[in-house]
Amino acid sequence: MNKTIETILNHRSIRKYKDTPLSDEQIDALVQSAQAASTSSFIQAYSIIGVKDPAKKKKLAELAGNQPYVEENGHLFVFCADLHRHEILGTMEEVKVADSLESTETFMVSLIDVALAAQNLVIAAESMGLGTCYIGGIRNNLEGVEEVLDIPKRVIPLFGLTVGYPAHESSQKPRLPKAHIYHEECYEQDEEKYKKELEAYNEVTSSYYKERTGGKREDTWTAQMANMLHTPKRMYMKEYIEKKGFSNK
Amino acid sequence: MNKTIETILNHRSIRKYKDTPLSDEQIDALVQSAQAASTSSFIQAYSIIGVKDPAKKKKLAELAGNQPYVEENGHLFVFCADLHRHEILGTMEEVKVADSLESTETFMVSLIDVALAAQNLVIAAESMGLGTCYIGGIRNNLEGVEEVLDIPKRVIPLFGLTVGYPAHESSQKPRLPKAHIYHEECYEQDEEKYKKELEAYNEVTSSYYKERTGGKREDTWTAQMANMLHTPKRMYMKEYIEKKGFSNK
Repeated sequence: MNKTIETILNHRSIRKYKDTPLSDEQIDALVQSAQAASTSSFIQAYSIIGVKDPAKKKKLAELAGNQPYVEENGHLFVFCADLHRHEILGTMEEVKVADSLESTETFMVSLIDVALAAQNLVIAAESMGLGTCYIGGIRNNLEGVEEVLDIPKRVIPLFGLTVGYPAHESSQKPRLPKAHIYHEECYEQDEEKYKKELEAYNEVTSSYYKERTGGKREDTWTAQMANMLHTPKRMYMKEYIEKKGFSNK
Repeated sequence: MNKTIETILNHRSIRKYKDTPLSDEQIDALVQSAQAASTSSFIQAYSIIGVKDPAKKKKLAELAGNQPYVEENGHLFVFCADLHRHEILGTMEEVKVADSLESTETFMVSLIDVALAAQNLVIAAESMGLGTCYIGGIRNNLEGVEEVLDIPKRVIPLFGLTVGYPAHESSQKPRLPKAHIYHEECYEQDEEKYKKELEAYNEVTSSYYKERTGGKREDTWTAQMANMLHTPKRMYMKEYIEKKGFSNK
């Protein structure tokens, strides 16, 4: 196993950071790494906003559900799906591009573009000894986030990413069995087999939580997920993204 | 600069592979790397289908627009957004989860989850000396792809990924200037500045194409994008994903 794969397999989210800001050189290397990711048909449909200002970070932390590490970290990145520049280039080239920009296909492309770039940044950060945590919580209130970051139309903040020197050890959550995620030749649709695999995985996750909490918690994965999914979250999203000019068509 | 960042920055898409299939150990390491990526609230909303069967690869290549490297490579992965297992776990736990599964929020989560896992796999592959290419072309005809791969409801094949030993050298396309992708503190909305940056980038891309084609092609990025976006693509997508049980709500 090489160093890079070791870094990848050693990933865990870090939710407490030392009080050391990232240097400009580090930020540069990270953004360059993000930009090196593949992009669908060269479209480069994303932007990254770096936030250092403590007041802005505080506001974003509040909007994201008061997780202290959104405020206290080495650097905070906000990743956005971005078709604003494509709208501007349409004007520059005097070509109508609105239908494309508003298509569900282009919405999907922009989301995938953002995530590929972000994951490159995460791996680069971890290879430098930094820790990271994705912050989906900013989607709790995207209008609030937009105000803090002055976001134009056709740009959607998708998630934050905190980066910094780890100030705690964290454990790795056991993933679904490989057979459940990885199918050979076609999608495995044997429901009984599928359920048995989930039950086996439940034992793994339940032992994991039990050990980690000294017996206080012994959730299974399916119970945890069912509980989470029972209450739909962020149901304003459909209307919001359509209003922002995405996925209308 | 460390080895991992070097690998990341050296990325280029590879569209011609040696006739050497990946070993099972290599596939294992790659899938394990994919699974190590962060996943939103532990939801693990993706599946990966590995395709070796030449007949299936041939069909997928036809569906994706006849790119020969979709058929000829060391291994073909198809990455899918997957909420099928969450529907099943809802039944197992006797909890109603349909509204969550059908929300635009969960659709976005699943796309981001897939892409984070895929990019981990790409970096792991490149660290092993393998080349990769994302295949968005499978979205040309997702019903065709579903038939080949026996895909159930609540699963959407998002893109393919070819992996193998490179059989050609390829060049790196110059990315947008960092200032254009990376904003500090808030989104830079000065349209004149923005256009000037795009014009400067146009000179870079135009020289790149000129040099690469011996003067035959000298596209600017904005012209290339305007031309591409002028004709909306895959406009069946909105109806398709809603029919598949995604992003209805």
